Amino acid sequence: IHKQVLDLYQGLHYRETIFKVGSKKIHIKAERFLSLDNVHLLVMKYGFLCEEACQITILTGIDGDVWDINGPHFKKTAYEQQEQQLSAIVTTNEGEMIIAAEMLDCSFGTNMIVHQENGLFHRVVVQAKPGREYFFYKYVSIYTSKDGVDQIKVAALAAVRESYSNGYDKLYRRHAQLWHERWLLSDVRIDGDEEAQFALRYSIYQLLAGAPIHSNRLSIPARGLSGQIYKGAVFWDTEMFMLTFFLFTQPKLARNILQYRYFALEGARKKAAEYGYRGAFYAWESQENGEDACTLFNVTDVFTERPMRTYFRDKQIHISADVVYGIWQYCKITGDDSILFEGGAEVILECARFFVSYAYFKKDKNRYEILDVTGPDEYHERVSNNAFTNYLVKHCLKVSLEVLELLKKKNESFYQNLLVKLDFTSEIPAIREMYELLYIPAPAADTMIIEQFDGYQKLEDVTLNDLKNRIKLPNEYWGGGNGLATTTRIIKQADVVLLLNLFRKEFSEEVKRANWEYYEPRTEHGSSLSHCTYAMLSTDIGKPDWAYPYFQKTATIDLTGDYKRYVGTLYIGGTHPAANGGAWMVTILGFGGLYFDGEVVTLAPKFPEKWRTLSFHVTVKEQNCEVIISKDLFTIVASSQNTRKVCFNLEGKIVENNPGQEITLPRLKNKIS
Amino acid sequence: IHKQVLDLYQGLHYRETIFKVGSKKIHIKAERFLSLDNVHLLVMKYGFLCEEACQITILTGIDGDVWDINGPHFKKTAYEQQEQQLSAIVTTNEGEMIIAAEMLDCSFGTNMIVHQENGLFHRVVVQAKPGREYFFYKYVSIYTSKDGVDQIKVAALAAVRESYSNGYDKLYRRHAQLWHERWLLSDVRIDGDEEAQFALRYSIYQLLAGAPIHSNRLSIPARGLSGQIYKGAVFWDTEMFMLTFFLFTQPKLARNILQYRYFALEGARKKAAEYGYRGAFYAWESQENGEDACTLFNVTDVFTERPMRTYFRDKQIHISADVVYGIWQYCKITGDDSILFEGGAEVILECARFFVSYAYFKKDKNRYEILDVTGPDEYHERVSNNAFTNYLVKHCLKVSLEVLELLKKKNESFYQNLLVKLDFTSEIPAIREMYELLYIPAPAADTMIIEQFDGYQKLEDVTLNDLKNRIKLPNEYWGGGNGLATTTRIIKQADVVLLLNLFRKEFSEEVKRANWEYYEPRTEHGSSLSHCTYAMLSTDIGKPDWAYPYFQKTATIDLTGDYKRYVGTLYIGGTHPAANGGAWMVTILGFGGLYFDGEVVTLAPKFPEKWRTLSFHVTVKEQNCEVIISKDLFTIVASSQNTRKVCFNLEGKIVENNPGQEITLPRLKNKIS
Repeated sequence: IHKQVLDLYQGLHYRETIFKVGSKKIHIKAERFLSLDNVHLLVMKYGFLCEEACQITILTGIDGDVWDINGPHFKKTAYEQQEQQLSAIVTTNEGEMIIAAEMLDCSFGTNMIVHQENGLFHRVVVQAKPGREYFFYKYVSIYTSKDGVDQIKVAALAAVRESYSNGYDKLYRRHAQLWHERWLLSDVRIDGDEEAQFALRYSIYQLLAGAPIHSNRLSIPARGLSGQIYKGAVFWDTEMFMLTFFLFTQPKLARNILQYRYFALEGARKKAAEYGYRGAFYAWESQENGEDACTLFNVTDVFTERPMRTYFRDKQIHISADVVYGIWQYCKITGDDSILFEGGAEVILECARFFVSYAYFKKDKNRYEILDVTGPDEYHERVSNNAFTNYLVKHCLKVSLEVLELLKKKNESFYQNLLVKLDFTSEIPAIREMYELLYIPAPAADTMIIEQFDGYQKLEDVTLNDLKNRIKLPNEYWGGGNGLATTTRIIKQADVVLLLNLFRKEFSEEVKRANWEYYEPRTEHGSSLSHCTYAMLSTDIGKPDWAYPYFQKTATIDLTGDYKRYVGTLYIGGTHPAANGGAWMVTILGFGGLYFDGEVVTLAPKFPEKWRTLSFHVTVKEQNCEVIISKDLFTIVASSQNTRKVCFNLEGKIVENNPGQEITLPRLKNKIS
Repeated sequence: IHKQVLDLYQGLHYRETIFKVGSKKIHIKAERFLSLDNVHLLVMKYGFLCEEACQITILTGIDGDVWDINGPHFKKTAYEQQEQQLSAIVTTNEGEMIIAAEMLDCSFGTNMIVHQENGLFHRVVVQAKPGREYFFYKYVSIYTSKDGVDQIKVAALAAVRESYSNGYDKLYRRHAQLWHERWLLSDVRIDGDEEAQFALRYSIYQLLAGAPIHSNRLSIPARGLSGQIYKGAVFWDTEMFMLTFFLFTQPKLARNILQYRYFALEGARKKAAEYGYRGAFYAWESQENGEDACTLFNVTDVFTERPMRTYFRDKQIHISADVVYGIWQYCKITGDDSILFEGGAEVILECARFFVSYAYFKKDKNRYEILDVTGPDEYHERVSNNAFTNYLVKHCLKVSLEVLELLKKKNESFYQNLLVKLDFTSEIPAIREMYELLYIPAPAADTMIIEQFDGYQKLEDVTLNDLKNRIKLPNEYWGGGNGLATTTRIIKQADVVLLLNLFRKEFSEEVKRANWEYYEPRTEHGSSLSHCTYAMLSTDIGKPDWAYPYFQKTATIDLTGDYKRYVGTLYIGGTHPAANGGAWMVTILGFGGLYFDGEVVTLAPKFPEKWRTLSFHVTVKEQNCEVIISKDLFTIVASSQNTRKVCFNLEGKIVENNPGQEITLPRLKNKIS
């Protein structure tokens, strides 16, 4: 008998198992949590009960022998004991120091300390009475050399002692209260679709659990807290797929996530210089210091078993533009431009500078072009004038010019100092010229298709099924030099469609629909970033029924485990917080039809068939409102703590909602859903 | 008993065989030639002798069932008989008409005409007497729809009738006389090295045999008259490796070969337009009409057995610059610029226009760059700023500007008309600017290495042996997307070294030597164009001992058959006229040290150890001289038919040689060789 529970609401893991040892039965219950009140703290309550009399030996402490598929985590480990406090001092392969301090609260048996090669443990031996439940508690405190604390060992030992004296229940209550508060602002209720409700809450939990509450030098990795292959590295996934959730529900966390890019700026500058460019070329797999963990050979060819040269690291230049997009979204949605003065402007300007130094000018066409890049669709590497990239780059240039205006207006001396610090004055005319003359692939006059990159439409137009029939070995990589998809129009994931999503107000519905219909059958959805993108654009063009299956995919990806686990021989499994963020976006921006232009919150819901009510909280410019959308009615409740009215556009009707006010408005009858 | 002779001196094939049929022996002798006097004519003399009395049946005529690895040659065949004249009228897959007319001169036996599915034949039956030698003669005349003759059937029948009445011996004498005259101007004598002597004469024979004496709409294909895979297509091989031989010995043939490019210009314009460029983008595998026979997938992957995308067709843009280089060499060496007025100028200007439309401008570096090309080294596709390509392009731009000046000076109205015809006036400032601002990778200040392309020196620096140890399957392709060499510094063939060869006066000996030493160990010599290039640069830097093994390779390639026969699963065998041309160049330009700058013929010999005397004829600006170089002496005999004196620089000493004059000069004693 085995039961395992992840309590999404309280951030608690619970396990209950009955083990049979010979003829004897032992009941085990264990619950544990990572404290939201104190991120250094791990707490566990462990209980057991023997049906018959037994001698039980408990070995618990600190096991320092930590491995994953990349090898051992630590290059140095040392263990210490001070009375009943155990501690491990380890050095990671990256040179970081980590202290783990542990205390055990065990009121039974004989307790002795055991040194073993791989760790330091308590050994508790107890003659357990039949039917009696024994409990012990374990407190662990973790500090690292990046925590900004002077003496991390002292801090860790103090923290563990304090938590020991506070005790499990008190610590648990504080933790649970904070999770409760998080959910107040982040929960989404869907009436009429239990499956969606559960999957969405699971997604939100994953986003919240992975977000850095305690540091603005960290972001959320592409595999969240799990997933070994990407070594905790941060991808564009964060800005493009996770950020929006935080912007509308937890703007402080959004700010932390974006500030991380400022602390990564030096790494991005190094990378640009490495490739002979100026400015900031953000890493494809960004480490804590901004350096790129991505190798040049990150797929293994299943035919030759050789490492395969790929162009993730070298050519996915859009990441710098994605970072700028994220920061600018933050300014627009939170109304807080202080981030610009705390590194944000520097990031933006350095990205613009990078693109100026990357681009080439085509004299006879009087335009700048962006050559030799890899766009979101990774099956087509080293392409030119990728529509997504060019558009995002143009946006980056525009933002950089606007930011310069803004800084100058708001704080002239800051502006001047920044120009001097970055030696930027001479860049400005170049940025302006490139902004004006950058080539942007436009929808074709007849078909309205935006060509994904130069020459895409000359590639073989094979169907996805026909391509799959060409597969010779399982897990063969479709991209790279000789991949199955490389010479065809089959794409890995949304590319033009993602562009249309990010700039949904700048393209007509006809263009969006034409491109959705053109690219969708040609998309493998081989990336967890693809389904939500197609879903969102479906709702945008009034097709929530097209969107729903993609929504299910993105919302349940880690519940069903139905995703691509191998690229070549490489295991790429783990959780998918970008898909989680995508599930929230499809629900709120897609089916809920939420759009905020910096002034007005628009709601244009397009529900899936069976949804009856969708309720959620939304925060814009520090004003929080609860939104309840039923099939017939909008209900908007402005928080009494709001400081200003919030303006809504409800299916075309403009309403203003004062602090504490509740507004109810019938929905249009002739809407599709 | 079997004997087969190719008579290089007379262009005759001879075969003698004794067949045993049961207990009976039949002696067969056959000799045949393709008349140099009339290129339409094939002539054969066939004899047999039976040791015992036999009934012999001879079946001879026209067999129209012609196949190669690309399939059958003809899509339509028809046969006709007019009295004793047989003829075949066939249509090739490319739509060309070919007539073959045949007559048999057989004075014995009974002769009847036999129709078979695959052809039309004479059947001759004779009761052969023992010991008597029987001879018959066969005359075949071939005309095609491209011969510029109105009624090709009439012409073919007339030609075969005439040759029949002239008879074998007369035809043979004319043919042999013309070959004799060819050899007078083209032969090279090497005393002291019989092997080299033979291999070089074989090479010269191949070049002469393949050259278009009768048409300026044809050139020499990369596999000469043999080699099925390239379908008779013309490559850069011709201008870069074969042309020089013709320029110095048979300038009229050189002119024909170059004029071909004018007739291919329309195809080159089409190709440029296909890729979105202006001007002329010459074909990688140029067909008669200039269209490109090269496919986008011209290698098969031995691992997946799938066609592999390669960038021969799309990215080897240097071919246009190579053509211009060839034409300009012609003007310089022959002194005949009439070719410019007969299409040459148009070719040159259209190539310059192509490069202007191909290049990109890098504003912050104030320079033009040439991105995304494949240079001579085909293992590294899609590279940027390939030194060879950039240099050749700059040369093309320079030549185009000089040609404009020349036309204007020599024939103003032609110049004006050409500008109008090509709508070229607006291109001139662009060409001039690009010429001035084109980025040319320079030798590094410290190492003097010219980097083959941007980033070459960041590639893995594996040894050739280590690379070979990585081979998993025979014939696996080293280039392409995932090839073994692609991500390393191992190159297929001379690239920078070829550049240094083509512009030998523009680089210092130190630079040449440094690059030879750097690139040689990194060169696979997987192309038949590579050995001669390294050999020539070796002699240029005073290392004839380094050159000799490469010379042997290039001179004997088709005698030993020691060359790469497969790329992937593709058979690429056949003759190698570029290597033949290379053998001549190594001998004359390399070991002979011949250089002509348009004014002075320089001779700076660097003999291999065992060479005693090197003798050859050289024609510059229509003046022919015989050159005899021994270890001690120069002897120069100017033809009495010369119209001007010829100026020589003999190891530093300037001498002038009047028509009919013989000059003898002792060689420097302190020279290495």
